[in-house]
Amino acid sequence: MKVGILGGGQLGRMLALAGLPLGLRFRVLDPGRDVAAAAVAEHVVGEYEDYAALADFVSGLDCVTYEFENVPVRTAEWLAQRVPVFPPPAALDVGQDRISEKVFFQKLGVPGPTFRAIGDRAGFDAALAAVGLPAVLKTRRFGYDGKGQRVIHDAAEAESAWDLLGGRPLILERLVPFQRELSILAVRGRDGAESFYPLVENHHRGGTLRKSLAPAPGLTPALQTLAERHASAVLRALDYVGVLAIEFFEWNGQLLVNEMAPRVHNSGHWSIEGAETSQFENHLRAGLGWPLGETGMPRPVAMINLLGLLPETPDVLAVPGAHLHLYGKAPRPGRKLGHVTVTASGSEELKTRLAALERQLPQEPH
Amino acid sequence: MKVGILGGGQLGRMLALAGLPLGLRFRVLDPGRDVAAAAVAEHVVGEYEDYAALADFVSGLDCVTYEFENVPVRTAEWLAQRVPVFPPPAALDVGQDRISEKVFFQKLGVPGPTFRAIGDRAGFDAALAAVGLPAVLKTRRFGYDGKGQRVIHDAAEAESAWDLLGGRPLILERLVPFQRELSILAVRGRDGAESFYPLVENHHRGGTLRKSLAPAPGLTPALQTLAERHASAVLRALDYVGVLAIEFFEWNGQLLVNEMAPRVHNSGHWSIEGAETSQFENHLRAGLGWPLGETGMPRPVAMINLLGLLPETPDVLAVPGAHLHLYGKAPRPGRKLGHVTVTASGSEELKTRLAALERQLPQEPH
Repeated sequence: MKVGILGGGQLGRMLALAGLPLGLRFRVLDPGRDVAAAAVAEHVVGEYEDYAALADFVSGLDCVTYEFENVPVRTAEWLAQRVPVFPPPAALDVGQDRISEKVFFQKLGVPGPTFRAIGDRAGFDAALAAVGLPAVLKTRRFGYDGKGQRVIHDAAEAESAWDLLGGRPLILERLVPFQRELSILAVRGRDGAESFYPLVENHHRGGTLRKSLAPAPGLTPALQTLAERHASAVLRALDYVGVLAIEFFEWNGQLLVNEMAPRVHNSGHWSIEGAETSQFENHLRAGLGWPLGETGMPRPVAMINLLGLLPETPDVLAVPGAHLHLYGKAPRPGRKLGHVTVTASGSEELKTRLAALERQLPQEPH
Repeated sequence: MKVGILGGGQLGRMLALAGLPLGLRFRVLDPGRDVAAAAVAEHVVGEYEDYAALADFVSGLDCVTYEFENVPVRTAEWLAQRVPVFPPPAALDVGQDRISEKVFFQKLGVPGPTFRAIGDRAGFDAALAAVGLPAVLKTRRFGYDGKGQRVIHDAAEAESAWDLLGGRPLILERLVPFQRELSILAVRGRDGAESFYPLVENHHRGGTLRKSLAPAPGLTPALQTLAERHASAVLRALDYVGVLAIEFFEWNGQLLVNEMAPRVHNSGHWSIEGAETSQFENHLRAGLGWPLGETGMPRPVAMINLLGLLPETPDVLAVPGAHLHLYGKAPRPGRKLGHVTVTASGSEELKTRLAALERQLPQEPH
């Protein structure tokens, strides 16, 4: 069977690496000439709205998935008329507009920060009054990794945020206090079976994920159950198939939803070594109608992104329990070039190993 | 960096799958047109003694390894004049002749069954007298998976064995009583660092490995130490680099060596999920001069070969802890088409899961 992936980046690459042992073959569509997934998949070079390229791409495929959430919905729907597409295009549609996503969460009873949609300057002022400060102004569409957003603490910052982003459809969200950011990876099969990975704790730098700890330290069964209940509501509402990531803010045992991504997710990379079945394999199992794999983890792990600069490979491999994943991408400031998963027999050993790894990582200038 | 592999079968495929995340690229040389490794590596179609093909193959490579032990020694030596080749060609040389291999083990003090080299019929009769019955008659060279050998219990079987194999250089080995067959996977780095996987228990059918249990049930520290001492002697004597497999017969806590394979080995496939670092990754780490990865295993696992016929993928994946590895090869009687590794939290659960898996496997007619 041949699986198509819209996007040929590292997520497509890791999907293919997980699927090849299952007897699957892969084809990616990506406008880039030199893409990470091309080492393990056929590569059709083309834009995502080029229907001639899409016809080339889909020919002979058994199903299609995607590795980024900004896939044009019309493209996903066009493909879905030809082969099964997972996750369902409706998930893209809901998630591509921050307002529709938040309204969707509200309807499902998944709590999140106060927000207001903004059309013009008057709307911005009204939103500031309704939401209060501190808040964060974001574009409604096509934001990722902290791009297209601005935090506002006072009137001066409100002005500069408006100068930067005004004129586009925006959303103002209350900046909620939180102790940490958590995410859950959920997976749902074609038959409706659901499975959940343990909540992980995420650490960002400059809006980009830098480190995930799995499971989240001090994770209680109550918190895990709460996250699973929220994720399950989303999965069922969308008749979802595949892996879904949901990010939360935690505040005193409460979870406020931040956003979701209808795909495999950077905060689930730890699952390659850390879980019984990786998010990549489970995404494929789900999409192909195969039984889901176990999501349990025998021991704590951590994942560190390699951003912008690469360490020397032997320096990483010298750290006990370090598992290196390079994406074959050329270094560029801030770019996700790879990640390292660190396994250990317990949380104390994990801390020691993680510290040893961090000493090997070149630091990018801020 | 680009690694060359002589042979494009499943071992080459799994080496590439292990090496791609480490940032490596691969090229295989194989006379077959449609080979398992081609999904994840460049493929130069050529014979192993075609020096024009070898020149094409080696151009731009950083090092070369091999996935089968019958690589012509001259080819390995020719390549070694151009790029580093691992394991060292001397290991091929010793291992390709069963007599030189057994003499090598003897010199190192690694005990094995009594044997005699046979040149002609008179030599065969002398060997029968010296070795005694039961015994096994084998070709000295190019045997694998039980091919080119015949067990002899009496005079009539001696005649039929001679009719089948006589005329070629042969070896007669005493058929020793044993409780089970065990193997150890050892790895040695360029710097001489050594590491060992736990002994595994192997079950064959018709001369072909069918199942491995890792670690070998009831494995004692004394037996593991004994196997490591033998393996270490072999590694050091050959100034070995890479993964080496050695097969033993166990009889009342004693180990008699059967044979070695200077490569990654079917009885180490469990290490992909079962060990901290797989044999494939450690073979590459060793050959590239990188630190070796940990060989420990957090829990017992089993590996079952898929021979000749393939089960339905969903039936395999429905078994908890089952990890499927298909090689992309067309089914053919007795052919190794893939394997399944089964993980479990303990040995009782492993038994239950293994039994569930075995019920899903189609049986080949005998």
